[in-house]
Amino acid sequence: MRALKLRPVPMPPTITAGTVDTWPFLLATGIGRYMRILDAIVTKRDGFSLPDDVIRSILSGYTSGEIPDYQMSALLMAIFFRGLNTHELAIWTDAMIHSGQRMDWRELTPRAVDKHSTGGVGDKISLPLAPAVAACGSVVPMVSGRGLGHTGGTLDKLESIPGFNVRLPMERCTEIIHQLGLVLIGQTEQIAPADKKIYALRDASGTVENIQLISSSIMSKKLAEGISGLVLDVKVGSGAFMKTLPDAEQLARTLTGIGNSMGCTTIAHITRMDRPLGKKVGNALEVKETLEVLRGEGPEDVRELVLTLGAEMLVLSKISPDLADGRQKIHTSLANGTALQKFQQLIEAQGGDPHIVDNPQLLPKSAAQTSIVAKRSGIIQSIHTSQLGIACCLLGGGRSKADDIIDPGVGMEITHTIGDSVQQGEELVKIHFTDTSRLAEACQMTTNAFTIGDEPPTPIPLLIGRIV
Amino acid sequence: MRALKLRPVPMPPTITAGTVDTWPFLLATGIGRYMRILDAIVTKRDGFSLPDDVIRSILSGYTSGEIPDYQMSALLMAIFFRGLNTHELAIWTDAMIHSGQRMDWRELTPRAVDKHSTGGVGDKISLPLAPAVAACGSVVPMVSGRGLGHTGGTLDKLESIPGFNVRLPMERCTEIIHQLGLVLIGQTEQIAPADKKIYALRDASGTVENIQLISSSIMSKKLAEGISGLVLDVKVGSGAFMKTLPDAEQLARTLTGIGNSMGCTTIAHITRMDRPLGKKVGNALEVKETLEVLRGEGPEDVRELVLTLGAEMLVLSKISPDLADGRQKIHTSLANGTALQKFQQLIEAQGGDPHIVDNPQLLPKSAAQTSIVAKRSGIIQSIHTSQLGIACCLLGGGRSKADDIIDPGVGMEITHTIGDSVQQGEELVKIHFTDTSRLAEACQMTTNAFTIGDEPPTPIPLLIGRIV
Repeated sequence: MRALKLRPVPMPPTITAGTVDTWPFLLATGIGRYMRILDAIVTKRDGFSLPDDVIRSILSGYTSGEIPDYQMSALLMAIFFRGLNTHELAIWTDAMIHSGQRMDWRELTPRAVDKHSTGGVGDKISLPLAPAVAACGSVVPMVSGRGLGHTGGTLDKLESIPGFNVRLPMERCTEIIHQLGLVLIGQTEQIAPADKKIYALRDASGTVENIQLISSSIMSKKLAEGISGLVLDVKVGSGAFMKTLPDAEQLARTLTGIGNSMGCTTIAHITRMDRPLGKKVGNALEVKETLEVLRGEGPEDVRELVLTLGAEMLVLSKISPDLADGRQKIHTSLANGTALQKFQQLIEAQGGDPHIVDNPQLLPKSAAQTSIVAKRSGIIQSIHTSQLGIACCLLGGGRSKADDIIDPGVGMEITHTIGDSVQQGEELVKIHFTDTSRLAEACQMTTNAFTIGDEPPTPIPLLIGRIV
Repeated sequence: MRALKLRPVPMPPTITAGTVDTWPFLLATGIGRYMRILDAIVTKRDGFSLPDDVIRSILSGYTSGEIPDYQMSALLMAIFFRGLNTHELAIWTDAMIHSGQRMDWRELTPRAVDKHSTGGVGDKISLPLAPAVAACGSVVPMVSGRGLGHTGGTLDKLESIPGFNVRLPMERCTEIIHQLGLVLIGQTEQIAPADKKIYALRDASGTVENIQLISSSIMSKKLAEGISGLVLDVKVGSGAFMKTLPDAEQLARTLTGIGNSMGCTTIAHITRMDRPLGKKVGNALEVKETLEVLRGEGPEDVRELVLTLGAEMLVLSKISPDLADGRQKIHTSLANGTALQKFQQLIEAQGGDPHIVDNPQLLPKSAAQTSIVAKRSGIIQSIHTSQLGIACCLLGGGRSKADDIIDPGVGMEITHTIGDSVQQGEELVKIHFTDTSRLAEACQMTTNAFTIGDEPPTPIPLLIGRIV
């Protein structure tokens, strides 16, 4: 996956939300087969809005294979330029959800909630967060993704736990939810199949970098979980897909707009991704850091995000009356071991080895380590964070394409971060590796990712903004 | 084919003609397969220009089947919005020509020339024009198309002559050219196959209505003929693809720009298509009118276009020193029967029945005729000309889709045209038909195509402009 470079695109000259009178019957001349998809392409291309039934028939037609890829890719490119209005986007997302099955937890109390992050380097928040929230009594039916490019994926991290199974039948998921209030699985064939097919087409047709298409993809999967509340962690910075605050804010507002218009209370935090999150990057290493946090320890930034996002989730599931109470409850669950216990129960329920909790040495390890050191003395000004993620990929710790196999022991320990003073030759990063074929390249990339200067850099807060 | 509705599209923020430094190596991170076509889509989507070698490899890759339809349709949609600059458009067209074989008439004197019309209703100009120009000593290797939608096609008109074969092997074409200085054939598999494939994809992906893609399609086929000079007849009005003068002018300038930048002297006339051209519409009927013109008779507008465009062609082939001389020579060829004789020889050479020249009754005829009459007395203000073409389609005289079979005897005789005074009940059009299944609809459509009022309408000249 490429980093997002969003550029301003022209807006439609007129937007009339979902009314059929905007539908130009281009072939209403009495001749020719009435081609709904072709008319839809031309309608969107020319800046008009698509009626609800047209959007629904396009998405069901594409999922069933009736509409060919070459028409869908042309439509996606037209959407890239012309956009979807708020109403169209809600219908588009709803139609993606209805291409598959939607889970239903309405009989459960409290309400099911979830969290989604737009991804970054070292972002293992879901791993400690979900058990902590479930330990406080909430229900978290979390469907996660895999890593691609510089970002890691929750499923890959979980799979570094020997035996952990993220592909469970729906009946087993339901059982585990009823038992633990928590399950961590991957997208199944039943969850938003339209999104799965459209995502692959976007990736191959140059239509990834569009906030609306990104948002509908994210939200269709999350809303198919049947949740009542959702907290979004929209990352911004050199390790995120969104490099600038305006882009991150636009994404956050689009995502919350979809969720809230579809009956799922959605709150977004915009958070810092100008540096790796926590001190460990890489699948097994991030599980280790997860265990630290679940023991009430761990790096301050990871801990703070678990407290902040966890508090939101407890309020959304109506367990906590306010954020302060939610924060206190999460704090307690980390301090008294209930969150850790929940994680251990989950690992066991999903077929993983629960002994890793007490003995993290059972997690996969790399064969060797090497240190990346500072080229000069000074203060770390910035980290080209996505380069660290790519360096991990080069070592086999991530995927550059979807079918790459991951070495779970590979990764990095971040010894120093932005604002730290370092001496020339002092360790910045410890690289964990086994395969040496691209080690030199990875080391070079990691070294170059750090910019060291003389003045202290302007500090950037971890929590940049909250969007309701 | 739909009527063109051209809308303003955003222009690229920067245009740098064909320099490789505009090529962003999006995946130059060291990971991932280097995907040239995907990068090209994103590059064009974001408003940058494509390097020459990228354009060439895309067009050869698409022709060979290496690049899938869904990537090409996304690229075409990106081009729809971002455009191609003058240099890109020339390379794109050249690459389409080089996807197949280019004819070569360089050993011939005088130089080979051709004419192309953007099409309309009753536009049979190629049929009398090509023999008249060849009769004056020029070489005309004309490759024509078929009709679709409201417009007729030269090939369909020729095929209404019993036995006429428009699909000749290249060796036979060359023989006929050497013998008569003239051949009238259809696009073969060898002529610009990239265009053939791209045209079909554009038709199915909503990317037809773009002046640059239209222009490269037209010019790739014409320039593959190996001609040294080309006269374009760009139609404007209710029966043309271009409804407005600015659109027609933009198309004319784009077409001449491509031709002249590629070593083929290209001149465009913008001419009137607010009414049917001549008095006969329909395949066999238009051959009949052709014979009238080749006998020095026929409707004034058809005759004038043959004289004007023929004069241009004689100057381009260096037979005439100026347009006045060219016009005189064409006039003589029509008056002294040499043009008619050339047409008869051509029919014989291409397997057709040459007796139709002396006995037009041998041409296919419809089973019956009916009159469309004026609904009120007054002066004809305007004719919704494309509706007449569609009415012919409904009767089987044209195609609403590419594989429809044509009834060559079907058509219309236009009794009155714009500016004529008519009495209520007086005949406007005589319809020639055989199949009656959609006759009522066709009659209704024809009746409604005429607007009759009280004031004389503002006259529009046949020849609107000339663009060099």
